[in-house]
Amino acid sequence: MAVYTHVSAEDAAVFLADYDVGELRALKGIAEGVENSNYLLETSQSQFILTLYESRVDADDLPFFHDLLGHLHKAKLPVPRFIDDKEGRWLKKINGRHACLIEFLSGLSLSEPTPEQARSVGISLGQMHKAVADFKPVRANALGINGWRSFLDSMDADQTNQIQAGLYNRLIAEIDYLEAYWPRHLPVSAIHSDLFPDNVLMLGNDVTGLIDFYFACTDITGYDLAVTHSAWCFDAENNHFREDVSDALFQGYQESFGMDGALQTAFPILARGSCLRFLLTRTFDWINTPAGALVTRKDPLVFLERLDHYSFDANIARLFGA
Amino acid sequence: MAVYTHVSAEDAAVFLADYDVGELRALKGIAEGVENSNYLLETSQSQFILTLYESRVDADDLPFFHDLLGHLHKAKLPVPRFIDDKEGRWLKKINGRHACLIEFLSGLSLSEPTPEQARSVGISLGQMHKAVADFKPVRANALGINGWRSFLDSMDADQTNQIQAGLYNRLIAEIDYLEAYWPRHLPVSAIHSDLFPDNVLMLGNDVTGLIDFYFACTDITGYDLAVTHSAWCFDAENNHFREDVSDALFQGYQESFGMDGALQTAFPILARGSCLRFLLTRTFDWINTPAGALVTRKDPLVFLERLDHYSFDANIARLFGA
Repeated sequence: MAVYTHVSAEDAAVFLADYDVGELRALKGIAEGVENSNYLLETSQSQFILTLYESRVDADDLPFFHDLLGHLHKAKLPVPRFIDDKEGRWLKKINGRHACLIEFLSGLSLSEPTPEQARSVGISLGQMHKAVADFKPVRANALGINGWRSFLDSMDADQTNQIQAGLYNRLIAEIDYLEAYWPRHLPVSAIHSDLFPDNVLMLGNDVTGLIDFYFACTDITGYDLAVTHSAWCFDAENNHFREDVSDALFQGYQESFGMDGALQTAFPILARGSCLRFLLTRTFDWINTPAGALVTRKDPLVFLERLDHYSFDANIARLFGA
Repeated sequence: MAVYTHVSAEDAAVFLADYDVGELRALKGIAEGVENSNYLLETSQSQFILTLYESRVDADDLPFFHDLLGHLHKAKLPVPRFIDDKEGRWLKKINGRHACLIEFLSGLSLSEPTPEQARSVGISLGQMHKAVADFKPVRANALGINGWRSFLDSMDADQTNQIQAGLYNRLIAEIDYLEAYWPRHLPVSAIHSDLFPDNVLMLGNDVTGLIDFYFACTDITGYDLAVTHSAWCFDAENNHFREDVSDALFQGYQESFGMDGALQTAFPILARGSCLRFLLTRTFDWINTPAGALVTRKDPLVFLERLDHYSFDANIARLFGA
């Protein structure tokens, strides 16, 4: 969470002059998004987010995100729209970075969601999955099943094992297992693939924003539910599984999109895949976060514990109230 | 510029329940203020800043800042007010930190002020100095003339000289000089003492906010003008002196508060003191900013160059259009 690239008030005013959004009245760098620099802009008309895309976002992917958000907006999902300038351009440059002006949405990112709130998120996720049925563009999931082994290969075994003894071999074994049992037959669509509580804005029990689509890609639809499940259903403080939140999330998703037997059967594998994905990237970040970095490193082992949770038969049996 | 202490949406909602300011609708950590954690809060009624005071701010000083801002607000200066809760308390706690809810002011912090804008700042600074004539509370300036030598003593000579060869002895010599010639006879009042462009909000040529009073203290009134001058009158890009900005700043201050001969005579010494103060603290921060820190270190040598500027007779002669 950081502001990597400085934007002065003067820079922002020049940038905004291309748009029909009123006069700049306030500009605050905000601590949001690990991949980009974000500013909250207030104009005489409204509030906006100005996002500068840093090196980890490939500019070639931006049209996919733009089109997906436009598609979801048309389907009445609460997603932020990219704002066009006076000439209809949405992708711009500022201070050497690709940049977009984006709609600001009210709402709060929760740290300890209640079951009612998780149910709302399940409903929204299902609505999103309904809405993308006719969304055509495709983006490969670089952090999906086909990317995990090469991602692990890029990491140093000794450094990885410094986080926890034996971690590197554990990761290899898990990838072996998941490659053998991955449910490649399940339906595929555009997915958010990173729907952590950080990326959902809520007011009370209502979802007011689904945000930060910069990992959105094409992958197994149910994998998105598994990511959401692994992100929402463990206590932030002690990492304990929250069965009430889990039940409510499934209930909401079932209601708006539905879960068939094939997804239920495959779900623990998908959830292990989700945990592995965050375990891998957090391990990589843990090892590679340079001294003086602006980003707070997240503990990778939280997701090793969650991976373990989805690996025990007794826990799996409880998932769908068996 | 950082958020040191995390405040969740749930924490903020509980905190806000003590106030009569509406329901929480958005919460964003903002990259503002090097001493504190700051959040921009939006409620159903208005916008606010939630400030958490980190270790570098002494809670015993907060009443001084609170009273000064209240005094300036009554005098119609554009300063943010501390918001009282339902029981009239303005100093609270959240997540183990002292915390205050503060009025949000629109406006932009400039990077490259024009002469017209500098003139407005000079007028506002003079208005502030007029308004504090009957402000009684006193707070010593720990970073003033009586603190510089012990501050330097706390720094390691070798580490200091790694920034620039000979820097440590240069700092000693400058303190010797300033202690000998400091204009201790000049009038004293409450001063901001840190009125950098960062700490002034503007819309066009109008000052809409004087903010970040956490270095405010009691010291030579003209020293505040010297700090402002050393902060505003050098080009951000190349550190060149901007005579047009300087002339305009003096003009505005002259207009609203006035400058007598004694202040003009002492001004170069006061300005050297200001440069030394920022040179010292930036050198300290440069040496002591830990690996992984959230704060971007500011180059101390910018203020050595400015100190040099105020040390040459030819430059001094030009200051007041002689």
